[in-house]
Amino acid sequence: MNAIIQRLGRRLRLGVVGGGPGSFIGPVHRTAARRDARFEVVAGVLSSDPERSRAAGQAIGLAADRAYGDWRELLAVERVRDDGIDAVAVMTPNAGHYPVADAALDAGFDVICDKPLTTTLADALKLVDKVRSSGLVFCLTHNYSAYPMVRQARAMVKAGELGEIRQVQLEYIQGHLARRVEDEATGPGWRFDAELGGGSLVLGDIGTHAHHLGAFVTGLDVVQVMADVGSNLPGRRVDDYAALLLRFANGARGSMWVTNAAAGAEHGLAFRAFGDQGGLEWHQEQPNHLLHRRLGDFPRLMTRRLDGLMGAEAEHASRVGIGHPEGYQEAFATLYADAADAIAARLTGQPCDPLALDFPTALDGAKGIKLIDAALESRRTGTWADCRLEV
Amino acid sequence: MNAIIQRLGRRLRLGVVGGGPGSFIGPVHRTAARRDARFEVVAGVLSSDPERSRAAGQAIGLAADRAYGDWRELLAVERVRDDGIDAVAVMTPNAGHYPVADAALDAGFDVICDKPLTTTLADALKLVDKVRSSGLVFCLTHNYSAYPMVRQARAMVKAGELGEIRQVQLEYIQGHLARRVEDEATGPGWRFDAELGGGSLVLGDIGTHAHHLGAFVTGLDVVQVMADVGSNLPGRRVDDYAALLLRFANGARGSMWVTNAAAGAEHGLAFRAFGDQGGLEWHQEQPNHLLHRRLGDFPRLMTRRLDGLMGAEAEHASRVGIGHPEGYQEAFATLYADAADAIAARLTGQPCDPLALDFPTALDGAKGIKLIDAALESRRTGTWADCRLEV
Amino acid sequence: MNAIIQRLGRRLRLGVVGGGPGSFIGPVHRTAARRDARFEVVAGVLSSDPERSRAAGQAIGLAADRAYGDWRELLAVERVRDDGIDAVAVMTPNAGHYPVADAALDAGFDVICDKPLTTTLADALKLVDKVRSSGLVFCLTHNYSAYPMVRQARAMVKAGELGEIRQVQLEYIQGHLARRVEDEATGPGWRFDAELGGGSLVLGDIGTHAHHLGAFVTGLDVVQVMADVGSNLPGRRVDDYAALLLRFANGARGSMWVTNAAAGAEHGLAFRAFGDQGGLEWHQEQPNHLLHRRLGDFPRLMTRRLDGLMGAEAEHASRVGIGHPEGYQEAFATLYADAADAIAARLTGQPCDPLALDFPTALDGAKGIKLIDAALESRRTGTWADCRLEV
Amino acid sequence: MNAIIQRLGRRLRLGVVGGGPGSFIGPVHRTAARRDARFEVVAGVLSSDPERSRAAGQAIGLAADRAYGDWRELLAVERVRDDGIDAVAVMTPNAGHYPVADAALDAGFDVICDKPLTTTLADALKLVDKVRSSGLVFCLTHNYSAYPMVRQARAMVKAGELGEIRQVQLEYIQGHLARRVEDEATGPGWRFDAELGGGSLVLGDIGTHAHHLGAFVTGLDVVQVMADVGSNLPGRRVDDYAALLLRFANGARGSMWVTNAAAGAEHGLAFRAFGDQGGLEWHQEQPNHLLHRRLGDFPRLMTRRLDGLMGAEAEHASRVGIGHPEGYQEAFATLYADAADAIAARLTGQPCDPLALDFPTALDGAKGIKLIDAALESRRTGTWADCRLEV
Repeated sequence: MNAIIQRLGRRLRLGVVGGGPGSFIGPVHRTAARRDARFEVVAGVLSSDPERSRAAGQAIGLAADRAYGDWRELLAVERVRDDGIDAVAVMTPNAGHYPVADAALDAGFDVICDKPLTTTLADALKLVDKVRSSGLVFCLTHNYSAYPMVRQARAMVKAGELGEIRQVQLEYIQGHLARRVEDEATGPGWRFDAELGGGSLVLGDIGTHAHHLGAFVTGLDVVQVMADVGSNLPGRRVDDYAALLLRFANGARGSMWVTNAAAGAEHGLAFRAFGDQGGLEWHQEQPNHLLHRRLGDFPRLMTRRLDGLMGAEAEHASRVGIGHPEGYQEAFATLYADAADAIAARLTGQPCDPLALDFPTALDGAKGIKLIDAALESRRTGTWADCRLEV
Repeated sequence: MNAIIQRLGRRLRLGVVGGGPGSFIGPVHRTAARRDARFEVVAGVLSSDPERSRAAGQAIGLAADRAYGDWRELLAVERVRDDGIDAVAVMTPNAGHYPVADAALDAGFDVICDKPLTTTLADALKLVDKVRSSGLVFCLTHNYSAYPMVRQARAMVKAGELGEIRQVQLEYIQGHLARRVEDEATGPGWRFDAELGGGSLVLGDIGTHAHHLGAFVTGLDVVQVMADVGSNLPGRRVDDYAALLLRFANGARGSMWVTNAAAGAEHGLAFRAFGDQGGLEWHQEQPNHLLHRRLGDFPRLMTRRLDGLMGAEAEHASRVGIGHPEGYQEAFATLYADAADAIAARLTGQPCDPLALDFPTALDGAKGIKLIDAALESRRTGTWADCRLEV
Repeated sequence: MNAIIQRLGRRLRLGVVGGGPGSFIGPVHRTAARRDARFEVVAGVLSSDPERSRAAGQAIGLAADRAYGDWRELLAVERVRDDGIDAVAVMTPNAGHYPVADAALDAGFDVICDKPLTTTLADALKLVDKVRSSGLVFCLTHNYSAYPMVRQARAMVKAGELGEIRQVQLEYIQGHLARRVEDEATGPGWRFDAELGGGSLVLGDIGTHAHHLGAFVTGLDVVQVMADVGSNLPGRRVDDYAALLLRFANGARGSMWVTNAAAGAEHGLAFRAFGDQGGLEWHQEQPNHLLHRRLGDFPRLMTRRLDGLMGAEAEHASRVGIGHPEGYQEAFATLYADAADAIAARLTGQPCDPLALDFPTALDGAKGIKLIDAALESRRTGTWADCRLEV
Repeated sequence: MNAIIQRLGRRLRLGVVGGGPGSFIGPVHRTAARRDARFEVVAGVLSSDPERSRAAGQAIGLAADRAYGDWRELLAVERVRDDGIDAVAVMTPNAGHYPVADAALDAGFDVICDKPLTTTLADALKLVDKVRSSGLVFCLTHNYSAYPMVRQARAMVKAGELGEIRQVQLEYIQGHLARRVEDEATGPGWRFDAELGGGSLVLGDIGTHAHHLGAFVTGLDVVQVMADVGSNLPGRRVDDYAALLLRFANGARGSMWVTNAAAGAEHGLAFRAFGDQGGLEWHQEQPNHLLHRRLGDFPRLMTRRLDGLMGAEAEHASRVGIGHPEGYQEAFATLYADAADAIAARLTGQPCDPLALDFPTALDGAKGIKLIDAALESRRTGTWADCRLEV
């Protein structure tokens, strides 16, 4: 039965900003919102071009008067409609995250926002403050942290099943920039332009995902980094490779390898974490498995299932029983489902299910931006850089 | 952009029969219908108890007047409403498939129906006839055949990439009946009762899936079987194990092993098929991979992706790009998406995308029922039984 | 330290019959004998052609007077030499196994013999009798049963860790006969000729291995079989495919799929066995792993190692510690090492290490020949055939 | 047939120094020497204690007069015996490598020596010089480089199949020091003492293996490193963890993660290398497989086999055909077999098979010692250290 309908008597109403024709992430967000029937997408701005935005909105089934041409208009109109939206989902190119999210919070909307949180640390910290002072829900879509076996890993670490964490290895090995796509007619799009404006493509695009995954699973902040960041391909003007040495808050050591330019690779996000008593290993390409190595015992091959063997945290993030694989879209949907719970709790003044509160927030996003800054500082200085965030 | 909205100016309207509180498959069907935004579920009968049916319908968000108490009422009312349903999805216990599907066709509705098609071959053949004569769309949810890598396998066989098929091995190894659940207070439900009424639990439940998968991938009918069917657990009164020797229409040989009672197993549906030039291997628990063995070359590890390496059939069944795992629910949704295309084509008189026409139909269902009959005949006689279906 | 040197003050002296130039299995046996330094190969007949035999013997380092031209001469001379051989290893084409082994036993030598034991059941039973009455050591090289993780599986079943065995699946999927090698100039050699003389290539070559593996692991005899045996390739005159339904002595059911003609396959010998409490799965191509599925718990991934986690049976068959893979040749060598222990015990009148006594014997070989006979009878009759061996 | 017997009319005669009772590596060396029947071990010093040495030598089958009590005696006596040894194999604790190898070269013997080459760079460079000036064979047992699929990887890189190498990741994840074994009664032995004397346990023990593997496969020297080296366990006085950022001679970037203290890990040596056109991945625990990712194509799963698909380099290092796993001991034996070829060529003045010349030498060993020095310098300075070796 539908938990949101039970609470509110209706589904939550969502407005989307970004994700129009040609976008990879737009359909992902909209499907995630629809997946568990807790949201209906009723309003949207799908392009920075007003004409294209309105056409694209209607093409996905929005009513004509809610297929807006501009996000400022969407916020202004929806906040005063009787049947106005409850929340805004932001999936624009990176540079749009801050202004849209900031204005949505000002308009009193809960926000679901794609990562990276912002393009500067200053903006990130302003958002953290605003979220804190407003009391609104803010969910950052570090979606990989919502896979059930990732939630399981975090719960096991938190419960002490691995002992004190000593070693962490993070990687995200992609291949889509292994060719010089920037020389091709179709071009790589805004990601390259944004990078040329001062960021670091590989770190913003996937480094923040790997970083968040490591922090999420271990419950530990990265406090120092040493980084080798650069480009694999001769003459390429953006970063497509980063290798980092990491120090965590408890003294644990680690490393991270992220690249978009490994020829033939797919989407190899993975973590390994070892504590005194054992280790965990997870690969996004086989997300329903979690390998649990144990000191003095054979490894266990943990699988996503709903028969009581996993903990409550992983069951909370699962839908279908043992042996029925769930995928990328389900993990993404779990963030939407959790955000829906938090939003419904806020709207009704009821308490939120504690298991729904493990979604990433603005603060997690700010830590990711800090990691990028620290890595680039380490590249400049050739030595360790501090990664602590004072908030 | 939404292909159904483009064609019809709206989503298709679906009525569901079955799948109420406690059902595993009900949420699966409804999520599948919603997944690609081609259907909206607007009417339903969710229980054989009218009171519970109406309450359950509203709890999933149906309007009060379309949360019906009886499926005959649903058919009668919806066929005359202006905004009435376009199609009926049947997900009752097995014994309900035939009467509901039969009446829905009589009422002029396209039908999506769970498997096994019916509980008797006679009923199955009647449905085949009615579907044929009515010209209506009938989609049987042998959902595993809609995984992209299964579609890929079928396309490769059809294109001759394996040469003539020589050997097939099918298996479906589950463990949920490894304990004597029939002695437990909560009980195993209608599956056991139905079996006691004359069917074969293991063959109806999962044997038909494995059989369809083999026929779908190879494009070959099973024509003879030799079967060992029975129960693993002492004193159990239903079948939980079957091993079959198979002969295919082209002379290829094969075998099938299906069980619900393998202690510790999960959901191990798999096929291997070898032809003159190579072989294919696929495991449902890792559905985004397909191993392609090749005569005189190293194997290829084919993965679900959208970069042009797979054929059109597999891309048609995919949504998200390389390295983003899709799962059970997406395969199920592909059947709904394909059925939607076929229904929209029928409603508008336009041609259907040929790639959408690979969903299983009533005839496939009848072949499955014939397999059960032949296997049980082989058990009785201790020798090969004919499995050909004359239609 | 070397256990045989400790007992005897020297290594055991071995004579080999068969395995000359071009033989696959000859170097395997000789390497196995040498692997653990318990034997030295000091005499041999390496070809049925006396001239080639003597040359080949010297080429592998035999002294000129012990590189014999005929196996009868080898037996006659070596039994009277002061430094004569202790044992004979037989690795001729199948038809030679019986006469050589029989004569070697008559000459008072312990025997290590390749499989299949004989080409007829009558010969097999005569060997069983002779071994029994002579008290000599007879080791049949069903080498796959000597992999540590196979020994581990057997020990776990025997200890009741799986509960009563209910289901068994055996397979051996090779590809080397996927092409029509019999039409090629180089030809397939004696295996095809032998088959044409009345046997069944696939069953004698690999079916007996799979059968022994299943019986070894479960501790259960096969008592009934239903078989589909034949050829995959049009016009081929020998069997390259067999699929069998099996019934075991305790009522457990099973199946077996063996083929030499699966295009692109390698050497896919595997077993799965399920009991009331769990299941085991092992693949020869990854021999250092054993998957242990458990009722009501996550699977364990057992690995070959020497840190006390495995049982004594598996440690007995292991040499190098955790994470250092052992392979095919080590398993083969374990049979030689175990046979050496048994031979040394017999020679010295001391008791043999019980862990060394798990090697296959003539009786196991006779059961394999009976399986072939029963499978071929089932092919003729189209129904179940009895597989019990009265000895 | 035996290549050494063909050339020399006999096997090579080997003397061993080290590897006595309790040693892990002693039996490995002796088995490797015996594996392919090119050497016989005829003399040895198995302990630094003369009494224990002589007893241990006889226990492995050495004649009493060649079971020496001291390695200086062994060298002095064997060089003048008519049937004296041809070569010396050194497998003492690390500190013994230099003096024994140095003296053996002085005595005119070819040398097979365990790694790390020495405990100081100065000694290493002296050995490099002496090997060069003497013209003697020197084989350093970085055994992992002799696995067939590693040889295959190197050959593919050399042939340009990956394009220019851009990224390398090396790892060696062990768990045997995850507990505080140094506090236990049995103690960890000389490795800990040696480290306390100035080295770095983790780098000397396994870091040099991973480093050599990377250099071997890519054909590229490491020229710069940034290192985080230390201990995982509180209070431990030796290094059990190292993470390095690497720069290779051609500008490629890489990283390395090595540890002995990952709880529950086994022997996870692995490499990944990506070039412009694809990538290779290999794991020591599954040594017969090599994953070949390809730009614009599906990955190939390359397997060790002898049917012509692998290159000559890998076939040279293989013994048994497709699907018969080879393991750790075979790779080790390949170094001995290759060294035997080189030694026999030197003794006979004939040319050596070029495929046998890919074994690691003193120069490779010196590069490993330089890596350790550079990593420790980087630890001190907190920035990149030069790793180039001028020889």
